[in-house]
Amino acid sequence: MSAHPFDNAIALSRQAPGRWLGRTSEDYWNMVSPYGGVTAAAMMRAMLDHPERSGTPLSFTLNFLAPIAAGDFAVDTELVRANRNSQHWSIRLSQAGKVLALAIAICAVRRDTWSQVEATRPEVPPAEACPVAPPRKATGFLQRYEFRIVRGMPFAANEDSLSHVWVSDRPPRPLDFASLTALCDSFLPRIFLRRPDFVPIGTVSINIYFHAGEEALARQGAAPLLAVAQAQAFSDGHFDHHGHVWSTDGTLLATTQQLVWYKE
Amino acid sequence: MSAHPFDNAIALSRQAPGRWLGRTSEDYWNMVSPYGGVTAAAMMRAMLDHPERSGTPLSFTLNFLAPIAAGDFAVDTELVRANRNSQHWSIRLSQAGKVLALAIAICAVRRDTWSQVEATRPEVPPAEACPVAPPRKATGFLQRYEFRIVRGMPFAANEDSLSHVWVSDRPPRPLDFASLTALCDSFLPRIFLRRPDFVPIGTVSINIYFHAGEEALARQGAAPLLAVAQAQAFSDGHFDHHGHVWSTDGTLLATTQQLVWYKE
Repeated sequence: MSAHPFDNAIALSRQAPGRWLGRTSEDYWNMVSPYGGVTAAAMMRAMLDHPERSGTPLSFTLNFLAPIAAGDFAVDTELVRANRNSQHWSIRLSQAGKVLALAIAICAVRRDTWSQVEATRPEVPPAEACPVAPPRKATGFLQRYEFRIVRGMPFAANEDSLSHVWVSDRPPRPLDFASLTALCDSFLPRIFLRRPDFVPIGTVSINIYFHAGEEALARQGAAPLLAVAQAQAFSDGHFDHHGHVWSTDGTLLATTQQLVWYKE
Repeated sequence: MSAHPFDNAIALSRQAPGRWLGRTSEDYWNMVSPYGGVTAAAMMRAMLDHPERSGTPLSFTLNFLAPIAAGDFAVDTELVRANRNSQHWSIRLSQAGKVLALAIAICAVRRDTWSQVEATRPEVPPAEACPVAPPRKATGFLQRYEFRIVRGMPFAANEDSLSHVWVSDRPPRPLDFASLTALCDSFLPRIFLRRPDFVPIGTVSINIYFHAGEEALARQGAAPLLAVAQAQAFSDGHFDHHGHVWSTDGTLLATTQQLVWYKE
Protein backbone atom coordinates (compact mmCIF):
# COMPACT_ATOMS: atom_id res chain seq x y z
CA MET A 1 0.00 0.00 0.00
CA SER A 2 1.39 3.38 -0.91
CA ALA A 3 1.62 6.12 1.68
CA HIS A 4 -1.08 8.78 2.04
CA PRO A 5 -0.27 11.87 -0.07
CA PHE A 6 -0.15 13.91 3.13
CA ASP A 7 2.59 11.68 4.55
CA ASN A 8 4.51 11.97 1.30
CA ALA A 9 4.12 15.74 1.35
CA ILE A 10 5.56 16.11 4.86
CA ALA A 11 8.17 13.35 4.61
CA LEU A 12 11.54 14.52 5.91
CA SER A 13 14.99 13.02 5.97
CA ARG A 14 17.48 13.92 8.64
CA GLN A 15 20.54 15.62 7.23
CA ALA A 16 22.21 16.58 10.50
CA PRO A 17 21.13 16.94 14.13
CA GLY A 18 18.32 19.51 14.02
CA ARG A 19 18.33 19.77 10.22
CA TRP A 20 15.81 18.05 7.98
CA LEU A 21 15.29 17.96 4.24
CA GLY A 22 11.93 17.81 2.50
CA ARG A 23 10.41 18.40 -0.88
CA THR A 24 7.25 20.22 -1.90
CA SER A 25 4.36 18.11 -3.18
CA GLU A 26 2.18 18.74 -6.21
CA ASP A 27 -0.66 17.06 -4.32
CA TYR A 28 -0.75 19.98 -1.89
CA TRP A 29 0.17 22.79 -4.26
CA ASN A 30 -1.67 26.10 -3.98
CA MET A 31 -1.58 29.14 -6.28
CA VAL A 32 2.11 30.11 -6.16
CA SER A 33 3.40 28.04 -3.26
CA PRO A 34 2.58 24.90 -1.31
CA TYR A 35 -0.65 25.05 0.72
CA GLY A 36 0.32 26.82 3.97
CA GLY A 37 -1.15 24.03 6.08
CA VAL A 38 1.21 21.45 4.63
CA THR A 39 4.18 23.76 5.17
CA ALA A 40 3.09 24.19 8.78
CA ALA A 41 2.69 20.42 9.09
CA ALA A 42 6.18 19.73 7.72
CA MET A 43 7.65 22.12 10.29
CA MET A 44 5.54 20.54 13.04
CA ARG A 45 6.70 17.13 11.83
CA ALA A 46 10.36 18.17 12.08
CA MET A 47 9.83 19.16 15.70
CA LEU A 48 7.84 16.01 16.51
CA ASP A 49 10.52 13.81 14.94
CA HIS A 50 13.35 15.46 16.85
CA PRO A 51 14.92 12.89 19.19
CA GLU A 52 14.90 15.38 22.07
CA ARG A 53 11.22 16.28 21.73
CA SER A 54 9.07 15.40 24.74
CA GLY A 55 5.46 16.22 25.52
CA THR A 56 2.87 17.08 22.87
CA PRO A 57 2.25 20.32 20.96
CA LEU A 58 0.65 23.06 23.02
CA SER A 59 1.20 26.22 21.00
CA PHE A 60 2.43 26.71 17.45
CA THR A 61 2.86 30.02 15.62
CA LEU A 62 4.10 30.27 12.08
CA ASN A 63 4.88 33.37 10.04
CA PHE A 64 5.10 32.99 6.27
CA LEU A 65 7.94 35.16 4.98
CA ALA A 66 7.88 34.58 1.23
CA PRO A 67 6.61 32.05 -1.31
CA ILE A 68 8.21 28.60 -1.24
CA ALA A 69 9.21 27.39 -4.70
CA ALA A 70 8.52 23.88 -5.97
CA GLY A 71 11.42 21.65 -4.99
CA ASP A 72 13.66 20.88 -2.04
CA PHE A 73 13.60 22.70 1.27
CA ALA A 74 15.38 22.44 4.61
CA VAL A 75 13.86 22.64 8.08
CA ASP A 76 16.04 23.64 11.03
CA THR A 77 14.74 22.85 14.51
CA GLU A 78 16.24 24.48 17.57
CA LEU A 79 15.31 23.42 21.09
CA VAL A 80 15.77 26.87 22.63
CA ARG A 81 14.88 25.79 26.14
CA ALA A 82 13.75 22.64 27.89
CA ASN A 83 12.00 22.95 31.24
CA ARG A 84 10.81 20.09 33.41
CA ASN A 85 7.38 19.86 31.79
CA SER A 86 7.70 22.00 28.68
CA GLN A 87 9.95 22.67 25.71
CA HIS A 88 10.39 25.78 23.60
CA TRP A 89 11.26 25.41 19.94
CA SER A 90 12.24 27.67 17.08
CA ILE A 91 11.77 26.22 13.58
CA ARG A 92 12.85 27.68 10.26
CA LEU A 93 12.13 26.50 6.75
CA SER A 94 14.51 27.65 4.05
CA GLN A 95 15.44 27.19 0.42
CA ALA A 96 18.97 27.94 -0.78
CA GLY A 97 19.75 29.51 2.59
CA LYS A 98 16.82 31.96 2.49
CA VAL A 99 14.37 31.63 5.37
CA LEU A 100 10.81 31.43 4.00
CA ALA A 101 8.84 30.36 7.09
CA LEU A 102 9.56 31.01 10.75
CA ALA A 103 7.83 29.29 13.67
CA ILE A 104 7.96 29.18 17.44
CA ALA A 105 6.31 26.36 19.31
CA ILE A 106 5.78 24.88 22.74
CA CYS A 107 5.49 21.22 23.66
CA ALA A 108 4.25 20.27 27.10
CA VAL A 109 3.30 17.34 29.23
CA ARG A 110 -0.47 17.39 29.68
CA ARG A 111 -1.53 17.15 33.33
CA ASP A 112 -4.78 16.14 34.93
CA THR A 113 -6.36 19.34 36.31
CA TRP A 114 -9.67 21.10 36.83
CA SER A 115 -11.02 21.53 33.32
CA GLN A 116 -13.80 23.48 31.67
CA VAL A 117 -14.58 24.13 28.03
CA GLU A 118 -16.19 27.53 27.69
CA ALA A 119 -16.45 27.77 23.91
CA THR A 120 -19.67 26.25 22.62
CA ARG A 121 -19.89 23.97 19.64
CA PRO A 122 -22.60 25.12 17.25
CA GLU A 123 -25.56 22.85 16.65
CA VAL A 124 -25.07 21.40 13.20
CA PRO A 125 -26.32 18.28 11.40
CA PRO A 126 -23.90 15.35 11.52
CA ALA A 127 -21.30 15.22 8.75
CA GLU A 128 -22.95 12.26 7.02
CA ALA A 129 -26.12 14.34 6.59
CA CYS A 130 -24.22 17.16 4.84
CA PRO A 131 -23.31 17.01 1.15
CA VAL A 132 -19.68 17.23 0.14
CA ALA A 133 -18.94 20.49 -1.68
CA PRO A 134 -17.50 20.03 -5.18
CA PRO A 135 -13.76 20.89 -5.13
CA ARG A 136 -13.26 24.53 -6.09
CA LYS A 137 -10.25 23.55 -8.19
CA ALA A 138 -9.40 20.46 -10.21
CA THR A 139 -5.81 20.25 -8.98
CA GLY A 140 -3.77 20.92 -5.88
CA PHE A 141 -4.55 20.88 -2.18
CA LEU A 142 -8.29 21.56 -2.49
CA GLN A 143 -8.52 18.03 -3.90
CA ARG A 144 -7.00 16.73 -0.68
CA TYR A 145 -9.80 17.85 1.63
CA GLU A 146 -13.47 17.07 1.75
CA PHE A 147 -15.52 20.08 2.81
CA ARG A 148 -19.14 19.85 3.88
CA ILE A 149 -20.33 23.43 4.22
CA VAL A 150 -23.08 23.87 6.80
CA ARG A 151 -22.89 27.66 6.97
CA GLY A 152 -20.92 30.20 4.94
CA MET A 153 -20.95 29.71 1.17
CA PRO A 154 -18.02 31.32 -0.64
CA PHE A 155 -18.50 34.29 -2.95
CA ALA A 156 -22.07 34.76 -1.74
CA ALA A 157 -21.47 38.20 -0.16
CA ASN A 158 -22.77 36.90 3.18
CA GLU A 159 -23.71 39.32 5.95
CA ASP A 160 -20.96 37.94 8.14
CA SER A 161 -18.01 35.62 7.68
CA LEU A 162 -19.01 32.98 10.24
CA SER A 163 -18.67 29.49 8.79
CA HIS A 164 -19.39 25.97 10.02
CA VAL A 165 -17.70 23.32 7.91
CA TRP A 166 -17.11 19.60 8.32
CA VAL A 167 -13.64 18.89 6.97
CA SER A 168 -11.58 15.75 6.52
CA ASP A 169 -8.53 14.51 4.67
CA ARG A 170 -9.12 12.94 1.29
CA PRO A 171 -8.50 10.04 1.17
CA PRO A 172 -9.35 9.59 4.86
CA ARG A 173 -6.35 9.55 7.21
CA PRO A 174 -6.27 9.08 11.01
CA LEU A 175 -5.79 12.42 12.75
CA ASP A 176 -2.44 13.30 14.31
CA PHE A 177 -0.80 16.57 15.35
CA ALA A 178 0.70 17.11 11.90
CA SER A 179 -2.63 16.74 10.09
CA LEU A 180 -4.48 18.76 12.75
CA THR A 181 -1.94 21.54 12.19
CA ALA A 182 -2.62 21.43 8.46
CA LEU A 183 -6.39 21.34 9.00
CA CYS A 184 -6.10 24.54 11.06
CA ASP A 185 -5.18 26.28 7.81
CA SER A 186 -8.01 24.75 5.78
CA PHE A 187 -10.51 27.49 6.64
CA LEU A 188 -11.80 29.37 3.62
CA PRO A 189 -10.25 32.85 3.49
CA ARG A 190 -12.83 35.04 5.23
CA ILE A 191 -12.79 37.68 2.53
CA PHE A 192 -14.30 35.14 0.11
CA LEU A 193 -17.29 34.97 2.45
CA ARG A 194 -17.84 38.71 2.43
CA ARG A 195 -17.13 39.70 -1.15
CA PRO A 196 -18.62 38.26 -4.32
CA ASP A 197 -15.39 38.22 -6.35
CA PHE A 198 -12.00 36.64 -5.97
CA VAL A 199 -9.19 38.86 -4.69
CA PRO A 200 -5.57 37.75 -4.27
CA ILE A 201 -4.82 36.72 -0.67
CA GLY A 202 -2.00 35.10 1.28
CA THR A 203 -1.74 33.97 4.89
CA VAL A 204 1.05 35.78 6.72
CA SER A 205 0.69 34.34 10.23
CA ILE A 206 -1.10 31.43 11.86
CA ASN A 207 -1.32 30.64 15.55
CA ILE A 208 -2.68 27.39 17.02
CA TYR A 209 -3.39 26.35 20.60
CA PHE A 210 -3.86 22.62 21.07
CA HIS A 211 -6.45 21.84 23.73
CA ALA A 212 -6.42 18.06 23.59
CA GLY A 213 -3.86 15.29 23.74
CA GLU A 214 -3.04 12.20 21.74
CA GLU A 215 -5.95 10.18 23.12
CA ALA A 216 -8.53 12.62 21.78
CA LEU A 217 -6.82 12.63 18.38
CA ALA A 218 -6.69 8.84 18.28
CA ARG A 219 -10.37 8.69 19.26
CA GLN A 220 -11.22 10.93 16.30
CA GLY A 221 -9.52 8.72 13.75
CA ALA A 222 -10.31 9.78 10.19
CA ALA A 223 -13.79 11.16 10.89
CA PRO A 224 -14.65 14.73 9.78
CA LEU A 225 -13.80 17.62 12.12
CA LEU A 226 -16.10 20.56 12.64
CA ALA A 227 -14.26 23.80 11.76
CA VAL A 228 -15.78 27.08 12.90
CA ALA A 229 -14.30 30.48 12.11
CA GLN A 230 -15.13 34.14 11.85
CA ALA A 231 -13.19 37.25 10.89
CA GLN A 232 -12.72 40.03 13.42
CA ALA A 233 -11.61 42.77 11.04
CA PHE A 234 -10.62 43.50 7.45
CA SER A 235 -8.48 46.64 7.45
CA ASP A 236 -5.65 48.29 5.58
CA GLY A 237 -4.72 45.23 3.54
CA HIS A 238 -5.00 42.46 6.16
CA PHE A 239 -7.79 40.50 7.77
CA ASP A 240 -7.80 37.98 10.59
CA HIS A 241 -10.00 35.15 11.69
CA HIS A 242 -10.53 33.29 14.93
CA GLY A 243 -11.42 29.62 14.69
CA HIS A 244 -12.29 26.48 16.62
CA VAL A 245 -11.71 22.88 15.58
CA TRP A 246 -14.06 20.35 17.19
CA SER A 247 -13.90 16.58 17.15
CA THR A 248 -16.94 14.55 16.13
CA ASP A 249 -17.64 13.75 19.78
CA GLY A 250 -17.63 17.45 20.70
CA THR A 251 -14.10 17.82 22.11
CA LEU A 252 -12.43 21.17 21.44
CA LEU A 253 -9.19 20.06 19.78
CA ALA A 254 -7.71 23.43 18.84
CA THR A 255 -8.32 27.15 18.73
CA THR A 256 -6.60 29.04 15.98
CA GLN A 257 -6.25 32.49 14.51
CA GLN A 258 -4.60 33.74 11.42
CA LEU A 259 -3.75 36.96 9.67
CA VAL A 260 -4.11 37.17 5.91
CA TRP A 261 -2.90 39.71 3.40
CA TYR A 262 -5.36 40.80 0.71
CA LYS A 263 -4.85 42.93 -2.32
CA GLU A 264 -7.49 45.62 -2.30
CA MET B 1 9.83 66.33 34.31
CA SER B 2 10.82 62.72 34.94
CA ALA B 3 9.97 60.00 32.43
CA HIS B 4 6.86 57.84 32.78
CA PRO B 5 7.64 54.62 34.71
CA PHE B 6 6.65 52.64 31.61
CA ASP B 7 9.28 54.42 29.53
CA ASN B 8 11.86 53.76 32.23
CA ALA B 9 10.86 50.08 32.35
CA ILE B 10 11.32 49.57 28.61
CA ALA B 11 14.34 51.87 28.16
CA LEU B 12 17.03 50.17 26.10
CA SER B 13 20.56 51.10 25.18
CA ARG B 14 22.16 49.84 22.00
CA GLN B 15 25.16 47.65 22.66
CA ALA B 16 25.81 46.51 19.10
CA PRO B 17 23.82 46.38 15.86
CA GLY B 18 20.74 44.32 16.70
CA ARG B 19 21.65 43.98 20.39
CA TRP B 20 20.04 46.05 23.13
CA LEU B 21 20.48 46.16 26.88
CA GLY B 22 17.71 46.80 29.38
CA ARG B 23 16.97 46.41 33.04
CA THR B 24 13.88 45.10 34.83
CA SER B 25 11.79 47.63 36.72
CA GLU B 26 10.33 47.31 40.20
CA ASP B 27 7.44 49.46 39.02
CA TYR B 28 6.28 46.65 36.74
CA TRP B 29 7.26 43.67 38.90
CA ASN B 30 4.89 40.73 39.13
CA MET B 31 5.05 37.66 41.39
CA VAL B 32 8.38 36.10 40.39
CA SER B 33 9.25 37.99 37.22
CA PRO B 34 8.50 41.26 35.48
CA TYR B 35 4.90 41.69 34.29
CA GLY B 36 4.76 39.86 30.94
CA GLY B 37 3.31 42.90 29.19
CA VAL B 38 6.34 45.01 29.98
CA THR B 39 8.67 42.26 28.77
CA ALA B 40 6.68 42.10 25.54
CA ALA B 41 6.84 45.89 25.27
CA ALA B 42 10.62 45.97 25.75
CA MET B 43 11.00 43.41 22.95
CA MET B 44 8.58 45.39 20.76
CA ARG B 45 10.56 48.52 21.58
CA ALA B 46 13.83 46.90 20.48
CA MET B 47 12.28 46.08 17.11
CA LEU B 48 10.70 49.53 16.75
CA ASP B 49 14.00 51.23 17.57
CA HIS B 50 15.97 49.18 15.07
CA PRO B 51 17.33 51.52 12.37
CA GLU B 52 16.21 49.12 9.63
CA ARG B 53 12.62 48.83 10.86
CA SER B 54 9.98 50.11 8.45
CA GLY B 55 6.19 49.90 8.59
CA THR B 56 4.24 49.44 11.80
CA PRO B 57 3.57 46.30 13.86
CA LEU B 58 1.08 43.91 12.31
CA SER B 59 1.57 40.65 14.21
CA PHE B 60 3.53 39.89 17.36
CA THR B 61 3.84 36.52 19.09
CA LEU B 62 5.85 36.01 22.24
CA ASN B 63 6.58 32.78 24.08
CA PHE B 64 7.76 33.04 27.68
CA LEU B 65 10.43 30.40 28.28
CA ALA B 66 11.39 30.90 31.92
CA PRO B 67 11.19 33.56 34.64
CA ILE B 68 13.26 36.70 34.12
CA ALA B 69 15.26 37.65 37.21
CA ALA B 70 15.50 41.20 38.54
CA GLY B 71 18.39 42.95 36.83
CA ASP B 72 19.94 43.39 33.41
CA PHE B 73 18.78 41.68 30.26
CA ALA B 74 19.74 41.72 26.59
CA VAL B 75 17.39 41.83 23.59
CA ASP B 76 18.61 40.55 20.23
CA THR B 77 16.66 41.61 17.16
CA GLU B 78 17.09 39.83 13.85
CA LEU B 79 15.52 41.08 10.64
CA VAL B 80 15.02 37.65 9.10
CA ARG B 81 13.49 38.94 5.89
CA ALA B 82 12.50 42.27 4.40
CA ASN B 83 9.96 42.31 1.58
CA ARG B 84 8.79 45.37 -0.29
CA ASN B 85 5.92 46.11 2.10
CA SER B 86 6.63 43.89 5.09
CA GLN B 87 9.38 42.82 7.45
CA HIS B 88 9.81 39.62 9.44
CA TRP B 89 11.60 39.78 12.78
CA SER B 90 12.86 37.33 15.36
CA ILE B 91 13.47 38.77 18.83
CA ARG B 92 15.07 37.08 21.82
CA LEU B 93 15.41 38.29 25.39
CA SER B 94 18.17 36.72 27.44
CA GLN B 95 20.01 36.94 30.75
CA ALA B 96 23.54 35.60 31.07
CA GLY B 97 23.22 33.98 27.65
CA LYS B 98 20.05 32.07 28.49
CA VAL B 99 17.06 32.83 26.27
CA LEU B 100 14.02 33.59 28.46
CA ALA B 101 11.57 35.02 25.93
CA LEU B 102 11.26 34.35 22.21
CA ALA B 103 9.18 36.39 19.77
CA ILE B 104 8.41 36.55 16.07
CA ALA B 105 6.85 39.65 14.61
CA ILE B 106 5.76 41.26 11.37
CA CYS B 107 5.86 44.94 10.49
CA ALA B 108 3.99 46.14 7.42
CA VAL B 109 3.06 49.24 5.51
CA ARG B 110 -0.66 49.83 5.99
CA ARG B 111 -2.52 50.31 2.71
CA ASP B 112 -5.87 51.86 1.91
CA THR B 113 -8.22 48.98 1.01
CA TRP B 114 -11.80 47.82 1.36
CA SER B 115 -12.31 47.54 5.10
CA GLN B 116 -14.90 46.04 7.40
CA VAL B 117 -14.88 45.46 11.15
CA GLU B 118 -16.89 42.37 11.93
CA ALA B 119 -16.26 42.10 15.66
CA THR B 120 -18.77 44.09 17.68
CA ARG B 121 -17.88 46.32 20.57
CA PRO B 122 -20.08 45.57 23.56
CA GLU B 123 -22.40 48.29 24.82
CA VAL B 124 -20.86 49.58 28.02
CA PRO B 125 -21.10 52.80 30.00
CA PRO B 126 -18.33 55.31 29.25
CA ALA B 127 -15.17 54.96 31.31
CA GLU B 128 -15.83 58.09 33.33
CA ALA B 129 -19.10 56.56 34.55
CA CYS B 130 -17.34 53.44 35.85
CA PRO B 131 -15.55 53.36 39.21
CA VAL B 132 -11.84 52.53 39.31
CA ALA B 133 -11.24 49.15 40.95
CA PRO B 134 -8.95 49.30 43.99
CA PRO B 135 -5.53 47.81 43.06
CA ARG B 136 -5.42 44.12 43.94
CA LYS B 137 -1.87 44.57 45.22
CA ALA B 138 -0.06 47.42 46.92
CA THR B 139 3.12 47.06 44.85
CA GLY B 140 4.20 46.14 41.37
CA PHE B 141 2.56 46.37 37.97
CA LEU B 142 -1.05 46.31 39.17
CA GLN B 143 -0.35 49.81 40.53
CA ARG B 144 0.55 50.92 37.03
CA TYR B 145 -2.88 50.32 35.48
CA GLU B 146 -6.28 51.70 36.23
CA PHE B 147 -8.99 49.06 35.76
CA ARG B 148 -12.68 49.92 35.58
CA ILE B 149 -14.51 46.60 35.62
CA VAL B 150 -17.82 46.69 33.78
CA ARG B 151 -18.30 42.91 33.66
CA GLY B 152 -16.35 40.04 35.21
CA MET B 153 -15.38 40.44 38.85
CA PRO B 154 -12.40 38.33 39.93
CA PHE B 155 -12.81 35.44 42.37
CA ALA B 156 -16.57 35.59 42.07
CA ALA B 157 -16.97 32.13 40.44
CA ASN B 158 -18.79 33.69 37.48
CA GLU B 159 -20.76 31.52 35.08
CA ASP B 160 -18.43 32.47 32.27
CA SER B 161 -15.12 34.28 31.95
CA LEU B 162 -16.26 37.09 29.67
CA SER B 163 -15.01 40.45 30.91
CA HIS B 164 -15.42 44.07 29.82
CA VAL B 165 -12.84 46.36 31.42
CA TRP B 166 -11.76 49.94 30.79
CA VAL B 167 -8.00 50.02 31.26
CA SER B 168 -5.42 52.79 31.13
CA ASP B 169 -1.85 53.45 32.15
CA ARG B 170 -1.33 55.04 35.54
CA PRO B 171 -0.22 57.79 35.46
CA PRO B 172 -1.85 58.47 32.08
CA ARG B 173 0.44 58.06 29.06
CA PRO B 174 -0.31 58.58 25.36
CA LEU B 175 -0.83 55.25 23.61
CA ASP B 176 1.85 53.86 21.30
CA PHE B 177 2.63 50.39 19.97
CA ALA B 178 4.81 49.54 22.97
CA SER B 179 2.13 50.41 25.51
CA LEU B 180 -0.62 48.78 23.43
CA THR B 181 1.47 45.60 23.41
CA ALA B 182 1.76 45.75 27.18
CA LEU B 183 -1.97 46.48 27.57
CA CYS B 184 -2.71 43.33 25.58
CA ASP B 185 -1.33 41.38 28.54
CA SER B 186 -3.30 43.30 31.16
CA PHE B 187 -6.35 41.03 30.99
CA LEU B 188 -7.16 39.33 34.26
CA PRO B 189 -6.22 35.63 34.08
CA ARG B 190 -9.48 33.95 33.06
CA ILE B 191 -9.22 31.27 35.73
CA PHE B 192 -9.67 33.98 38.38
CA LEU B 193 -13.06 34.68 36.83
CA ARG B 194 -14.19 31.08 37.06
CA ARG B 195 -12.82 29.91 40.37
CA PRO B 196 -13.24 31.50 43.77
CA ASP B 197 -9.67 30.97 44.97
CA PHE B 198 -6.26 31.99 43.75
CA VAL B 199 -4.24 29.37 41.87
CA PRO B 200 -0.69 29.87 40.59
CA ILE B 201 -0.67 30.84 36.90
CA GLY B 202 1.82 32.03 34.30
CA THR B 203 1.40 33.16 30.69
CA VAL B 204 3.32 30.96 28.28
CA SER B 205 2.36 32.51 24.94
CA ILE B 206 0.74 35.71 23.74
CA ASN B 207 -0.25 36.60 20.18
CA ILE B 208 -1.37 40.06 19.03
CA TYR B 209 -2.74 41.27 15.69
CA PHE B 210 -2.69 45.04 15.28
CA HIS B 211 -5.68 46.29 13.31
CA ALA B 212 -5.00 50.02 13.38
CA GLY B 213 -2.13 52.32 12.55
CA GLU B 214 -0.35 55.19 14.23
CA GLU B 215 -3.13 57.69 13.55
CA ALA B 216 -5.68 55.69 15.53
CA LEU B 217 -3.22 55.32 18.41
CA ALA B 218 -2.45 59.05 18.39
CA ARG B 219 -6.18 59.82 18.34
CA GLN B 220 -6.65 57.68 21.43
CA GLY B 221 -4.03 59.54 23.46
CA ALA B 222 -4.09 58.55 27.13
CA ALA B 223 -7.82 57.76 27.33
CA PRO B 224 -8.97 54.36 28.68
CA LEU B 225 -9.18 51.43 26.27
CA LEU B 226 -11.99 48.90 26.36
CA ALA B 227 -10.56 45.41 26.86
CA VAL B 228 -12.85 42.45 26.19
CA ALA B 229 -11.79 38.84 26.66
CA GLN B 230 -13.12 35.34 27.19
CA ALA B 231 -11.56 31.93 27.71
CA GLN B 232 -12.17 29.16 25.20
CA ALA B 233 -11.00 26.24 27.29
CA PHE B 234 -9.29 25.28 30.54
CA SER B 235 -7.78 21.84 30.09
CA ASP B 236 -4.89 19.69 31.26
CA GLY B 237 -2.99 22.53 32.95
CA HIS B 238 -3.44 25.35 30.42
CA PHE B 239 -6.17 27.77 29.47
CA ASP B 240 -6.45 30.32 26.72
CA HIS B 241 -8.36 33.50 26.11
CA HIS B 242 -9.34 35.49 23.06
CA GLY B 243 -9.52 39.26 23.44
CA HIS B 244 -10.30 42.53 21.71
CA VAL B 245 -8.90 45.96 22.51
CA TRP B 246 -11.12 48.89 21.47
CA SER B 247 -10.33 52.58 21.39
CA THR B 248 -12.66 55.05 23.09
CA ASP B 249 -14.10 56.02 19.70
CA GLY B 250 -14.92 52.38 18.87
CA THR B 251 -11.95 51.48 16.65
CA LEU B 252 -10.73 47.88 16.97
CA LEU B 253 -7.04 48.41 17.76
CA ALA B 254 -5.95 44.83 18.40
CA THR B 255 -7.13 41.27 18.72
CA THR B 256 -5.13 39.05 21.02
CA GLN B 257 -5.01 35.57 22.42
CA GLN B 258 -2.89 33.99 25.04
CA LEU B 259 -2.19 30.65 26.60
CA VAL B 260 -1.66 30.43 30.35
CA TRP B 261 -0.30 27.66 32.54
CA TYR B 262 -2.20 26.95 35.77
CA LYS B 263 -1.32 24.71 38.63
CA GLU B 264 -4.32 22.49 39.31
